[in-house]
Amino acid sequence: MRIAIDMDEVLADPIHKFIQLYHRDYQVSLDLFQEPGKEFFHHIPEEINNKWYEYINQKGFFRDLPVMEGAVEAVKQLQENNEVYIVSAAMEFRNSLEDKLDWLGEHFPFVGWRKIMFCGDKIIKADVLIDDRAKNFVGFEGRKLLFTSPHNLLLTDYERVNNWQEVLAKLL
Amino acid sequence: MRIAIDMDEVLADPIHKFIQLYHRDYQVSLDLFQEPGKEFFHHIPEEINNKWYEYINQKGFFRDLPVMEGAVEAVKQLQENNEVYIVSAAMEFRNSLEDKLDWLGEHFPFVGWRKIMFCGDKIIKADVLIDDRAKNFVGFEGRKLLFTSPHNLLLTDYERVNNWQEVLAKLL
Repeated sequence: MRIAIDMDEVLADPIHKFIQLYHRDYQVSLDLFQEPGKEFFHHIPEEINNKWYEYINQKGFFRDLPVMEGAVEAVKQLQENNEVYIVSAAMEFRNSLEDKLDWLGEHFPFVGWRKIMFCGDKIIKADVLIDDRAKNFVGFEGRKLLFTSPHNLLLTDYERVNNWQEVLAKLL
Repeated sequence: MRIAIDMDEVLADPIHKFIQLYHRDYQVSLDLFQEPGKEFFHHIPEEINNKWYEYINQKGFFRDLPVMEGAVEAVKQLQENNEVYIVSAAMEFRNSLEDKLDWLGEHFPFVGWRKIMFCGDKIIKADVLIDDRAKNFVGFEGRKLLFTSPHNLLLTDYERVNNWQEVLAKLL
């Protein structure tokens, strides 16, 4: 079975980093709570709520993101009997490319370059796609697993996985 | 129709650059002729014929490659009635990622980030794949167009296109 896995908010945690940067630069105290169905920046004062776009375009932003809980061990287990690909819509952010590849090299060195894909549209052929963004499921013909993130909590049209344990329970 | 197009030796000409660098550093005079079925480095003295691997890993290598003849106009024409994606196995060379994206931004700005993909294995879903490397056709279910390059001249199992005019004649 071929399994494709998204990066941000599935393997890596950019929200945590955004919150740190907003606190550092604007002394905004955001906790990690996001209202269901909202993006984290909906909770930020209007005059600075587009700063996330500057942060995400800075070199280094993606290099030191925390790994999502259980992700490394889960990907290793899935790899045992499946082809596992990492598929990230990284192409929108030029400065993210090297950081994302280096980050994968650090935390997921067992994946290897042949199984990494940076793209825009995810026009891939796979049996399963694990992603937190429903837009990436458009046109995908395999099984779609919506990885829970606050912004997608109100969506009901997809098979949902709340964490990596649930992914393993469904796919192993 | 969705058309996926490889970069090196299809849109961009890395062979030309290799030859310049070998000449600059080793005063080796290579012309652009390659014996059918051979890679360009098969014509280089043994003691330096692995230097190409150092060159290709250097920052900047892919940034100023010549554009293959007729490629820009052809991609524009194909875009009029098709979804055109650029799909490059760039992931092997970390230092190529930014250069390749910048190169596309310079010469093919009308493609846009959503339709660019850097990968290892080309596990894509498309109707046509234009590529000079037969290995990239493995597992691809659409129409395969082998773009002629000296290294692939002895292959007879694929539908061949010798230049961008022939691609247009077949696909328009």
